[in-house]
Amino acid sequence: MKLATLKNGRKDGRLVVVSRDLQHAADAAAIAPTLLDALERWHAAEAPLLALYERLNAGTADGAFAFDPAQAAAPLPRAPQWCDGSAFLNHGRLMEKAFDIAPMPDADRIPLMYQGGSDDLLGPHDDLPLPDEAHGIDFEGEFGVIVGEVPLGCPAALALRHVRLLVQINDVSLRAFGPREMRTGFGFFQAKPSSSFAPVAVTPDEIGEAWRDGRVHLDLTVMRGDERFGHPNGGEMSFGFDQLIAHAAFTRRLSAGTIVGSGTVSNAGGQRGSACIAERRAIELIEHGASRTPFLHFGERVRMEAQWQGAPVFGAIDQRVVQALPPTA
Amino acid sequence: MKLATLKNGRKDGRLVVVSRDLQHAADAAAIAPTLLDALERWHAAEAPLLALYERLNAGTADGAFAFDPAQAAAPLPRAPQWCDGSAFLNHGRLMEKAFDIAPMPDADRIPLMYQGGSDDLLGPHDDLPLPDEAHGIDFEGEFGVIVGEVPLGCPAALALRHVRLLVQINDVSLRAFGPREMRTGFGFFQAKPSSSFAPVAVTPDEIGEAWRDGRVHLDLTVMRGDERFGHPNGGEMSFGFDQLIAHAAFTRRLSAGTIVGSGTVSNAGGQRGSACIAERRAIELIEHGASRTPFLHFGERVRMEAQWQGAPVFGAIDQRVVQALPPTA
Repeated sequence: MKLATLKNGRKDGRLVVVSRDLQHAADAAAIAPTLLDALERWHAAEAPLLALYERLNAGTADGAFAFDPAQAAAPLPRAPQWCDGSAFLNHGRLMEKAFDIAPMPDADRIPLMYQGGSDDLLGPHDDLPLPDEAHGIDFEGEFGVIVGEVPLGCPAALALRHVRLLVQINDVSLRAFGPREMRTGFGFFQAKPSSSFAPVAVTPDEIGEAWRDGRVHLDLTVMRGDERFGHPNGGEMSFGFDQLIAHAAFTRRLSAGTIVGSGTVSNAGGQRGSACIAERRAIELIEHGASRTPFLHFGERVRMEAQWQGAPVFGAIDQRVVQALPPTA
Repeated sequence: MKLATLKNGRKDGRLVVVSRDLQHAADAAAIAPTLLDALERWHAAEAPLLALYERLNAGTADGAFAFDPAQAAAPLPRAPQWCDGSAFLNHGRLMEKAFDIAPMPDADRIPLMYQGGSDDLLGPHDDLPLPDEAHGIDFEGEFGVIVGEVPLGCPAALALRHVRLLVQINDVSLRAFGPREMRTGFGFFQAKPSSSFAPVAVTPDEIGEAWRDGRVHLDLTVMRGDERFGHPNGGEMSFGFDQLIAHAAFTRRLSAGTIVGSGTVSNAGGQRGSACIAERRAIELIEHGASRTPFLHFGERVRMEAQWQGAPVFGAIDQRVVQALPPTA
């Protein structure tokens, strides 16, 4: 099943079901007005949403209309919580090597995760308004899961039963703030403005065997303008989403609608490129003694898409970095 | 004006207006069903809420009933965002001295702030269910502000106009996780389970001149069981809420309902005690070479209250630490 949120002038938008080929949509308001509402009442909402999805795919849904991803918000424009892992150790090792950071001795046992802001998540074609090019504007291509309510202390062995939907994310990052915010120990804050999401969230069965071991075994193709920047595969996660969910729920329960992210997708060996500029710059620093690739300039476009069996899964993130207007008050 | 949220079985509860003396309440559903809704439509909701508040104080509000803080949820049980500062540098300096942490060279210029989870904030009399006493269970008494929408880049000079309400907070902390999570650079996650809130949020005028310079100049009396643990004053913030809001909004807009916290209230000199156990333990370590005061045990109670002109402002946080039930799935 594929679900999206269309903008309607309200914070949470309105829920639609999207056809498997992403061409058509049908209003789901009679089942649940918003995706968050559907997630909070999943046991009641799942079956009628699925029935509508099947009618939509069969061409028999009343009131079906063309799906326009430019009208889509993030699937959850305002999520209860955004817990972003850094589960590809290859990425972390490159950053440590480039910047001479001492690795955590237990980094292969305890996943890294930061708490992100989740009040203002952006849609797939929304501009990225940021204050200053000098802040080191970067993208990070990721996969994520949206969970139902997860009880405090949920073990990894039971965590995947709480996964409702898979999503694809651009975790926008401002690299100028990262090192200082890491040194304070308080973690990322100004370094992590709003993240963006591909238009469609999908149930795990939509990618068949590519969802296994709590990992999304799909290539994430990241384009910077016309350049294919990278196409790493999500299967190389050093921690599965089962482990990330258990980590997030270790001392708290997670509300339905919590999003758990993989961290920037990264594959060993380098042949597949990178899903963020910082990683390529780290590789350049290691190999050539200096970083060459610049961070994003205003006006640049970033596109991210994942396919399964030759067809797009989540739709594309395709957005432009722009200068934020000066504040008015 | 004083506002509270009563539990009604839904995530966001229901909004009530509370009399100045905290004795009576009146349903505000005809104006706004929830506090979040009121904050999102503040320019429309403020005047009728205030009129209801005045009738309630005059004893002429229809349907007024006794206010029972035990029925109160957090004013925002599910806030869009929770941005917690650490704005009392006295606290940070004690921690640095006790644990031989190198201070950030610009710590007096850039406030510390971490992103907290905001999906599951607890009410004033809710139990604190936590998995293990060995995690170093601690309280942190704080003040906070709830803002309306704040534009990206809002300067400190314009930030206070966005303050809608003042709140009082117990930022529950698990000290066993803090040092490791700080070393990773990704910041607090498992160290910060759900925070708790005093029952009533108040407009700044409710504390007269005690709200000035973007600071809450009130004593916060913290009781651990029958012991007065500390009564530090909020006026010693090294950064005002104006600076904290500007810091939070530097690279992102803040949604209406965002909560910005002061960090644990802490006064120089030590005569007023501490608002968290970790700070007292740090002082003991500095003065005696060893920490003596234990962290919380299951069954212990914590009470926090602030008064203005001899009367309670926000009502009291009064809660018990309990062992979380083992997860069921």
